[in-house]
Amino acid sequence: MNTGIMVDCQNHICNVVLNSPDKLNAMSRAMWRDLKAAFHIIQADSRIRCVLLRGAGAHFCAGGDIAEYPDFRFEETALRHFHEEEVWGALDAMLTCDVPIVAQIQGVCMGAGVEIASACDVRLASEDSKFGAPIARLGFPMAAREAALVSGAVGEMTARAMLLAAEIFPASHMAAQGFLTRVLAPDELEPACLSMALRIANLAPLAARLNKKTLRALKAGVALESPYDYANSAEHAEGIAAFIAKRKPNF
Amino acid sequence: MNTGIMVDCQNHICNVVLNSPDKLNAMSRAMWRDLKAAFHIIQADSRIRCVLLRGAGAHFCAGGDIAEYPDFRFEETALRHFHEEEVWGALDAMLTCDVPIVAQIQGVCMGAGVEIASACDVRLASEDSKFGAPIARLGFPMAAREAALVSGAVGEMTARAMLLAAEIFPASHMAAQGFLTRVLAPDELEPACLSMALRIANLAPLAARLNKKTLRALKAGVALESPYDYANSAEHAEGIAAFIAKRKPNF
Amino acid sequence: MNTGIMVDCQNHICNVVLNSPDKLNAMSRAMWRDLKAAFHIIQADSRIRCVLLRGAGAHFCAGGDIAEYPDFRFEETALRHFHEEEVWGALDAMLTCDVPIVAQIQGVCMGAGVEIASACDVRLASEDSKFGAPIARLGFPMAAREAALVSGAVGEMTARAMLLAAEIFPASHMAAQGFLTRVLAPDELEPACLSMALRIANLAPLAARLNKKTLRALKAGVALESPYDYANSAEHAEGIAAFIAKRKPNF
Repeated sequence: MNTGIMVDCQNHICNVVLNSPDKLNAMSRAMWRDLKAAFHIIQADSRIRCVLLRGAGAHFCAGGDIAEYPDFRFEETALRHFHEEEVWGALDAMLTCDVPIVAQIQGVCMGAGVEIASACDVRLASEDSKFGAPIARLGFPMAAREAALVSGAVGEMTARAMLLAAEIFPASHMAAQGFLTRVLAPDELEPACLSMALRIANLAPLAARLNKKTLRALKAGVALESPYDYANSAEHAEGIAAFIAKRKPNF
Repeated sequence: MNTGIMVDCQNHICNVVLNSPDKLNAMSRAMWRDLKAAFHIIQADSRIRCVLLRGAGAHFCAGGDIAEYPDFRFEETALRHFHEEEVWGALDAMLTCDVPIVAQIQGVCMGAGVEIASACDVRLASEDSKFGAPIARLGFPMAAREAALVSGAVGEMTARAMLLAAEIFPASHMAAQGFLTRVLAPDELEPACLSMALRIANLAPLAARLNKKTLRALKAGVALESPYDYANSAEHAEGIAAFIAKRKPNF
Repeated sequence: MNTGIMVDCQNHICNVVLNSPDKLNAMSRAMWRDLKAAFHIIQADSRIRCVLLRGAGAHFCAGGDIAEYPDFRFEETALRHFHEEEVWGALDAMLTCDVPIVAQIQGVCMGAGVEIASACDVRLASEDSKFGAPIARLGFPMAAREAALVSGAVGEMTARAMLLAAEIFPASHMAAQGFLTRVLAPDELEPACLSMALRIANLAPLAARLNKKTLRALKAGVALESPYDYANSAEHAEGIAAFIAKRKPNF
């Protein structure tokens, strides 16, 4: 079986699967590079309205593929390249993707898994899923941009507990901290995620892209160039006309 | 019956009511302008120590008055004027008001309702209230400053779920996310809000204004000019004297 | 009995005790100065891997020692010196300490207590503990840097409710808001804190220091100078070797 990142787009929805189930979908360097490539393709395809990202099998992602670490982590230049090009390259491709990304999380979501989930827009998780970044057991800290991403998504206290105390948190904690949008029974997770992806795909696609651009610009402290040029767009007219006519909009 | 913004100030407390109950208090352009005017008056009146803001009838605010939208939203200049002058004019008047603002929320609190509530300091809500900003159904995104305000108040994940997936959240979710100060049974909401307004009105009024100025300056990344010039104020002396004498302070 | 700050370091763990139990450990000016000195000593001692901070007796800290306030608070220069040198001196020494700090919180945690707890990395609390900063009853606002620290740790809504409405919150609220890492039954608090301190002391100590430096640099908007120079460190090699060999690391 091929491992790596599986991408399958149809009917406005793109399924992205972290696929290395024998290793609980631990991210190899090749998978980070493939994840970046996948999101560059998604970003370039105007038909896609929603990404649904999950792990193959019973888990989301156990972290990095530690078997590869001795080959490159002990040399400073290679280590920097790994974090700033490979890992951040993929996470940045997700963060700059204008299409809403739904994370479907079950089983373990650790280290790289938390980072990937943090780059999604909404996160649905099974009530038995578990979250952490216990890299202090592995003797290394989290890289700065990854720490900023995770700390912003899980909250600073939870980030410090994960990094400094190797704490593992249940889904209920992550929901209370604003990381998870919804927590579901294991057999309700997949239908709930599919339902959310379909709902997003039926909403105004340009508005979604503008909302993501707006929130990204706010974080960067910059202003969008023409934030109101959607005024005369077809979907703006359709949304308001449909509401006034009390019918479903057709975007 | 007149619709609009009703303002009634007495005994240090100012009641502000979003009053268009036939439309679940949806905000018309005139109401946005009146809301701005109301808060400019409040800010200028040194007797006022607390604002209590609510909707008329059984709801807080259903959003904008969509019946007006075809008249101006499809032309870029008018759309910009609406968001940056009318809507933001009112929200900015609330955000720069130095008097503590308590939001009393029941029923629907959607779109403009979430924005107005986000500009309050504390928010009490009925346990059956509902929150969202499903404007993706209307085919348009949230304007940047409004998105920054809402995202800061409801948390980024909840903001993304509201904007990208048109999610509606119950009061319990909004409390866990730090948006609601307290959630109450429907018949306990009004007395709890009145009790909180009275409590605030009995606390040191200049300290409250300084606290609001401080928190606003922190967000803007600026420093207050004379942060310690309250040192020899009468209320500072009274507060500490009363504590040491084990009596209630009289501010 | 001496009151003040008690410090006792052994086996990589440093116990810091706010010790003025007759006043529920209210912070005197001398205690603020001693707290600063304690953290400067801790920061300089490379053997220390975890700080466990608690109050003597049944409470964490009731706030400032108000009996001292009439002596200095009513003169602007002295007031500024108190907040910016004495109080912030101690809090800044905690915030710039590279060793993980665990707060063990029971009973009241008010005002100065919330500020001190906010400068810790993880916070465990007894389920009957109470949190607030009701200084509006004392007629004065929170100083700017203290307000920034507290608001960042408890969340902005909770900070506003504490400062503007003198609200007191139970541990359950503070956990939901991301302030408390865990809430425990009263008799489980001390063993849980000791267990967490021991766990932290067994994790990679340089990784912990780098993680704290990284999170601090992110807040300050600066970059660490050589973030990857840990590549060839002994603890990095040991952590990964131990994981691959499926044995416990020995840091």
